[in-house]
Amino acid sequence: MGVRITPRSKSFPDWYQDVCQAGDLAENSPVRGCMVIKPHGFALWENIRDPLDRMIKETGHVNAYFPIFIPLSFLSKEAEHVEGFAAETALVTHYRLKAVKEDGKTKMIVDPDSELEEPLVVRPTSETIIGHMYAKWIQSHRDLPVLINQWANIVRWEMRTRLFLRTTEFLWQEGHTCHATADEAQAETMQMLGVYERLCREYLAVPVRVGLKSPLETFPGADATYAVEGLMQDGKALQMGTSHNLGQNFAKAFEIQFQDTDGERKLVWTTSWGLSTRTVGAVVMAHGDDDGLVLPPRIAPLQVVIVPIFRKEEERAAVLAEAGPLFEQLNEAGVRVRLDDRTQMKPGAKFFEWEKKGVPVRLELGPRDVESRQAMLVRRDDKSKTPEPLEGLAAKMPALLVEIQDAMLTRATRFRDEHTHEANSWEEFQELLDDPGGFISAHWDGTRETEAEIKAKTKATIRVIPTSEEAQPGACVLTGKPSERRVLFGRAY
Amino acid sequence: MGVRITPRSKSFPDWYQDVCQAGDLAENSPVRGCMVIKPHGFALWENIRDPLDRMIKETGHVNAYFPIFIPLSFLSKEAEHVEGFAAETALVTHYRLKAVKEDGKTKMIVDPDSELEEPLVVRPTSETIIGHMYAKWIQSHRDLPVLINQWANIVRWEMRTRLFLRTTEFLWQEGHTCHATADEAQAETMQMLGVYERLCREYLAVPVRVGLKSPLETFPGADATYAVEGLMQDGKALQMGTSHNLGQNFAKAFEIQFQDTDGERKLVWTTSWGLSTRTVGAVVMAHGDDDGLVLPPRIAPLQVVIVPIFRKEEERAAVLAEAGPLFEQLNEAGVRVRLDDRTQMKPGAKFFEWEKKGVPVRLELGPRDVESRQAMLVRRDDKSKTPEPLEGLAAKMPALLVEIQDAMLTRATRFRDEHTHEANSWEEFQELLDDPGGFISAHWDGTRETEAEIKAKTKATIRVIPTSEEAQPGACVLTGKPSERRVLFGRAY
Repeated sequence: MGVRITPRSKSFPDWYQDVCQAGDLAENSPVRGCMVIKPHGFALWENIRDPLDRMIKETGHVNAYFPIFIPLSFLSKEAEHVEGFAAETALVTHYRLKAVKEDGKTKMIVDPDSELEEPLVVRPTSETIIGHMYAKWIQSHRDLPVLINQWANIVRWEMRTRLFLRTTEFLWQEGHTCHATADEAQAETMQMLGVYERLCREYLAVPVRVGLKSPLETFPGADATYAVEGLMQDGKALQMGTSHNLGQNFAKAFEIQFQDTDGERKLVWTTSWGLSTRTVGAVVMAHGDDDGLVLPPRIAPLQVVIVPIFRKEEERAAVLAEAGPLFEQLNEAGVRVRLDDRTQMKPGAKFFEWEKKGVPVRLELGPRDVESRQAMLVRRDDKSKTPEPLEGLAAKMPALLVEIQDAMLTRATRFRDEHTHEANSWEEFQELLDDPGGFISAHWDGTRETEAEIKAKTKATIRVIPTSEEAQPGACVLTGKPSERRVLFGRAY
Repeated sequence: MGVRITPRSKSFPDWYQDVCQAGDLAENSPVRGCMVIKPHGFALWENIRDPLDRMIKETGHVNAYFPIFIPLSFLSKEAEHVEGFAAETALVTHYRLKAVKEDGKTKMIVDPDSELEEPLVVRPTSETIIGHMYAKWIQSHRDLPVLINQWANIVRWEMRTRLFLRTTEFLWQEGHTCHATADEAQAETMQMLGVYERLCREYLAVPVRVGLKSPLETFPGADATYAVEGLMQDGKALQMGTSHNLGQNFAKAFEIQFQDTDGERKLVWTTSWGLSTRTVGAVVMAHGDDDGLVLPPRIAPLQVVIVPIFRKEEERAAVLAEAGPLFEQLNEAGVRVRLDDRTQMKPGAKFFEWEKKGVPVRLELGPRDVESRQAMLVRRDDKSKTPEPLEGLAAKMPALLVEIQDAMLTRATRFRDEHTHEANSWEEFQELLDDPGGFISAHWDGTRETEAEIKAKTKATIRVIPTSEEAQPGACVLTGKPSERRVLFGRAY
């Protein structure tokens, strides 16, 4: 009867793997490090992608598409950038196969005569190829700003992979913008960080910590990286989206220049920002329970499932006579609903399946329910069971789905707040990190060396330097040296 | 002042290239054979993609995502299939870069120690990797049918490329389905062919010829390929979508089996069907004129543009006082509209730009128009100019856009019908093919040899074997041998 889900308390990583499989989200493919996103998982991604696409367009951006291949020389133009990705690049070196005879059999091999003069890198991100095009497109201040986004697949050769969280291929959007001034680029960087924060909160029901990344965690080639960080139920942080102020680094490398209003030629200021299928993993780990997925209604592919219950044929007819119209009413009310009228499957097995798939509301409808003109409403998030009158049920559903969405955000926010602690000594820092985990707000002396030492000692990294809160000086939790402000540490995915 | 568009009469290929560039649809990238789809071109693709995605879902399919890489051994499992793609495969052979010193400089090269044990093919189509997964997913007749679609990028190493029509990388959807019976697979194949026909007719305003492909043009690995073929203004045909009945070929190669109701293990029957960014090229070539793009309103990224005309500041205020509300009314009426209030650009230059971009309706609004409470309405498709009262203009616009859409389909249908001729002798065949070109309906003896000979002599191929019309026997136009029915020949892209 399908997958047994390991309890979270026993092994969170095993639980995660089991829930992804039991919920039919994704599975590993025969291609090392690449996953297959199954229909239920892809529908969930579509429901994250579509509102984000709307928000990206509402903030004045347009979509475009750039090549998946990047000439090696392009990637190498920005020194920090290529260094950051050198160890994980898939390289296309040949373009043809050739049939050879081996033991009397025909076999296909790479045709050695088809070697490329210059190897092509399968994009690990697109700053370089897009920068090259922007240099051609931008001449004057009138061409600015350039506000382009791309939905694409990305390849980073990962040695240790985990479904959605770290895979060799993943799907994302990457925005790439050019501006006339440093201030505009910074405003854009912060605007898109805000869009990610809103997407996570309003759609994924994941409250995120927002802020600047430390030197160790900055994107290769960026002046500054900002991130939204969610907290998972095992107390580990997950970076859910990043927004980079690239300064003039790529503008220099690719000579992206414009003639300004004063007649002078100047380098543009660029940004980039991305959010990926990793967010699907965040939804799993932020909300799931030991019975499987728990999906926020706004992004759940299916919001309500109606399960008719009957034994005899006449019961079946009576129950379906009610279930059909209920389905129609919910459908008309704009609810994503399914009437699960599969035969040859018992109601219990159906309950179990939809629970694992995280459907927010289940409506059970049996002969007695029909007699008393009601349905049993089971909420996936809190497991409450309430008999509800059939009359008016469909009309009430949209509000109930909002209520569930809000409850999930409230619960996740409480969890995050209960797992955010201040540490004022090195001992306290280590203790809190082990139990209860979560975000540790602590002072840091601002050096890359201290950050690296803390990481080496504890596996914790600086998740964000909160920019919204006021700075309070103090002493570094490791070195005791002066610190300008507290930062948020955590172990992370 | 931008791109000069070569007249169609002078050189149709140059015209095509110029229109794509002037209309800001796409351009060549520095990566051989790969194009950059610019925002206007991508918005057009989104307006083709989105209704197709809806139709695919309405016919019961769900989306999923499979890896971009295919192990070479997988591609090789179906002999015809690998042979069909062997000459055009991008091959990933290494996964890491390495820094080396050369003349005192650091240079990045492919790390020879990172060679893959088995090369990976960048997907030229996904039957093989998906077939492998289906074999794992399908056990019983209860698991059937499997109705999955994927939106993805595809790579086929092309030596001679042309924007949208033939590029090394392109975007498409590929449906892959499994069925319990041959009849069901055939019904699915025809259903999706019908979806493509409808998309072309209702959205792209391109009437297509529908039918079976001849042996020479059948997909490598298919039992039967069906296609929708549009006719371009130069008299050449363009294959706009294909639907394949794959029989049990991939089921055999990947052992996709199910236990049937009778308890026996059987091979499934599979189909695949795809439509790509090539359709953007079809829209350009079916409708464009010597002034640039002419876009069907249903898929035009922008349907109406309002161009205010003024010289003095007080004129500007008066004109914008009318243009603003007009914009709002059109927007509220659900029209994709832009008010082009750019300063530093003369109205004539704006007219020119929006003409090149194919916007269906331009509304010119000057001081005199404002006085007489009207706007000049210029249709892109027939270039008619009509003064229209401002009162009620927005409300009338949706109907006018439908009228334009219909007129474009009517015009394209007339062109196609005027360029479809019967040839009853080899001489007539050759004459008609040269002038006026188009589809030649002629008898063919049904052999691959004759088809190949006709292709070698004339460059014409069998575009489709019409399946909807009744068969009328006759004599082959080349060999005089018996023929079961007329087929449609044409030169093609």
